[in-house]
Amino acid sequence: MSLLDDTRARIPHLEETIAAGTQRLLDDKTKPRRSLGRLEDLACRVAAMRATELPELPVKAIVVMAGDHGVAAEGVSAYPQEVTRQMVLNFARGGAAINVLARHASARLVVVDMGVAGDLEPAPGLLLRPIARGTQNLARGPAMTRVQAIAALEVGIAVARELADSGVTLLGIGEMGIGNSTAASALAAVLTATPVETVTGRGTGIDDVVWQRKVDVILQAIARNRPDPNDALDVLAKLGGFEIAGLAGVVLGAAAARVPVVVDGLISTAAALVAVRLAPRAAAFLLASHRSVEPGHAILLDALALTPLLDLGLRLGEGTGAALAMGLVEAAVRILHEMASFSAAGVADSGA
Amino acid sequence: MSLLDDTRARIPHLEETIAAGTQRLLDDKTKPRRSLGRLEDLACRVAAMRATELPELPVKAIVVMAGDHGVAAEGVSAYPQEVTRQMVLNFARGGAAINVLARHASARLVVVDMGVAGDLEPAPGLLLRPIARGTQNLARGPAMTRVQAIAALEVGIAVARELADSGVTLLGIGEMGIGNSTAASALAAVLTATPVETVTGRGTGIDDVVWQRKVDVILQAIARNRPDPNDALDVLAKLGGFEIAGLAGVVLGAAAARVPVVVDGLISTAAALVAVRLAPRAAAFLLASHRSVEPGHAILLDALALTPLLDLGLRLGEGTGAALAMGLVEAAVRILHEMASFSAAGVADSGA
Repeated sequence: MSLLDDTRARIPHLEETIAAGTQRLLDDKTKPRRSLGRLEDLACRVAAMRATELPELPVKAIVVMAGDHGVAAEGVSAYPQEVTRQMVLNFARGGAAINVLARHASARLVVVDMGVAGDLEPAPGLLLRPIARGTQNLARGPAMTRVQAIAALEVGIAVARELADSGVTLLGIGEMGIGNSTAASALAAVLTATPVETVTGRGTGIDDVVWQRKVDVILQAIARNRPDPNDALDVLAKLGGFEIAGLAGVVLGAAAARVPVVVDGLISTAAALVAVRLAPRAAAFLLASHRSVEPGHAILLDALALTPLLDLGLRLGEGTGAALAMGLVEAAVRILHEMASFSAAGVADSGA
Repeated sequence: MSLLDDTRARIPHLEETIAAGTQRLLDDKTKPRRSLGRLEDLACRVAAMRATELPELPVKAIVVMAGDHGVAAEGVSAYPQEVTRQMVLNFARGGAAINVLARHASARLVVVDMGVAGDLEPAPGLLLRPIARGTQNLARGPAMTRVQAIAALEVGIAVARELADSGVTLLGIGEMGIGNSTAASALAAVLTATPVETVTGRGTGIDDVVWQRKVDVILQAIARNRPDPNDALDVLAKLGGFEIAGLAGVVLGAAAARVPVVVDGLISTAAALVAVRLAPRAAAFLLASHRSVEPGHAILLDALALTPLLDLGLRLGEGTGAALAMGLVEAAVRILHEMASFSAAGVADSGA
């Protein structure tokens, strides 16, 4: 069996009895029952994912995957393609927003070159796993071959598995790739059967003319490639990107290792939906960090039945929203570990 | 001049030019402009409050004030009055939710007995500043005298001033006091001219019968005490509580020292509104952490023109929401300090 098929098969079904046990632990803490709201839900969900009523305090990592997109040649972005590589170098030097927010979250940052156009030198925290030097232009034909898409998925699976083996118990995902909001919007339109105009947003900041071009490019890509909405691998290969496929693999690998995955914005959530279409049980291992300003993001979150923790008008990607939300997930688990029970603290419980 | 009047007079007016300078610093960071959304607003607001375009990384403290309420005798809470004192002991031992979340936020926790019924022994991190052993029953007459209300305000001012003098640059506020959602709802109804039924919620978790009693008690309190809505001190004295008055003082003292205050739920937000009615310039130093499930909370936030950062269904108080949000405020300031600029990182800027 291939790594991909083996991983899909190994993703466990969650036992809801564990979450109920965690809620009982929370109900004995010195606070009115359920008064910590979604923080309590988070603790219960992490417990179910980790298959223990009292999950360990999270060991955190954020995986940022980068790749270039042939569709950038259509002029769909506010930035030139070189910015993908420049930003990977910025990640390696520690100067990007995700570096700051990963440090703030005490999360290890792992950057993966999944297919950046141009050379990258080895650097600490940077994994060089390029499938090719950028995808083909999806407006003219398939972005990837099916073999490339599987290879990218399996890189992601391997990265997640190595992180889980090294003790990581909470993953965030993010991305960098000029043109990748075009690919992600195309995936969102096909996988959720939503009109292209509805899912397509402004990406890093484009005007009305460029937005219309982006919509036209996506319509053309769908018309030319005829992706089969019932075959997620087909949709991914034809419309996706190396970093999107890689992140879908990270979700699968993390789910197989019972590691919760905190999803970021439009692009990483599109990757998460691809993963869930490939392996529906992976859905139970996802946590949504935030709702971005990209219209397609809310549509993807709905398709995944995820409610985001934050709504801060972010539209940066890189895993920045995931980094911010990981602090809330950790807080929820700390409550489980560190709060006193009514009996231990000598506090009267109303039973309310 | 009294400490209260002196503090009110010393609260500065914010210079909006400083926020504009901070936004320029952010616009040169390696990200699309404004792509960090409300995180950028937060950085700019903190800069204006601190009167410097590049404010220092926050030194954080959370002040939790506790007090008892004569109105508890009316049976308006799900918990007996002894729980106030028991929870203060729990705070002192480190076992309450706010202890966990303050540690998580790396914030110093200062607990102040503003008027708990019953004896409290000195303990580290616990300040004993009781005005009396609980307020009078506001359903039968004024909760406090005007002199007591001023004394409680001045305790809060002194606490904030001492923290600012010791180097604290970001404050969160929270409270504990059985019956205090009744007092806070009464304050909200009068200060925002909103019907009592609209502002009154379930507090720590009461049923329909107790909720109706709570509404009736508040209506009776307003009818009997006839607070003057244009005299915030009168409203505070007649319907408030020692911990609410103390927190209003903390807001005033912090604002006078240019220290941003992260407000928590219904009760601390009612205290913030009292502070703003006493000194309108204090409004510029407030940040809203979350929107609680208490209906009066959203009404108070609207009256203060504050948009909360989080919406997690919290209804615990203690400053728990403030603790969670302080991490976001710190993240915003770290972005300012630690992100690379376009020129330094060699990344092309679209100007978008």
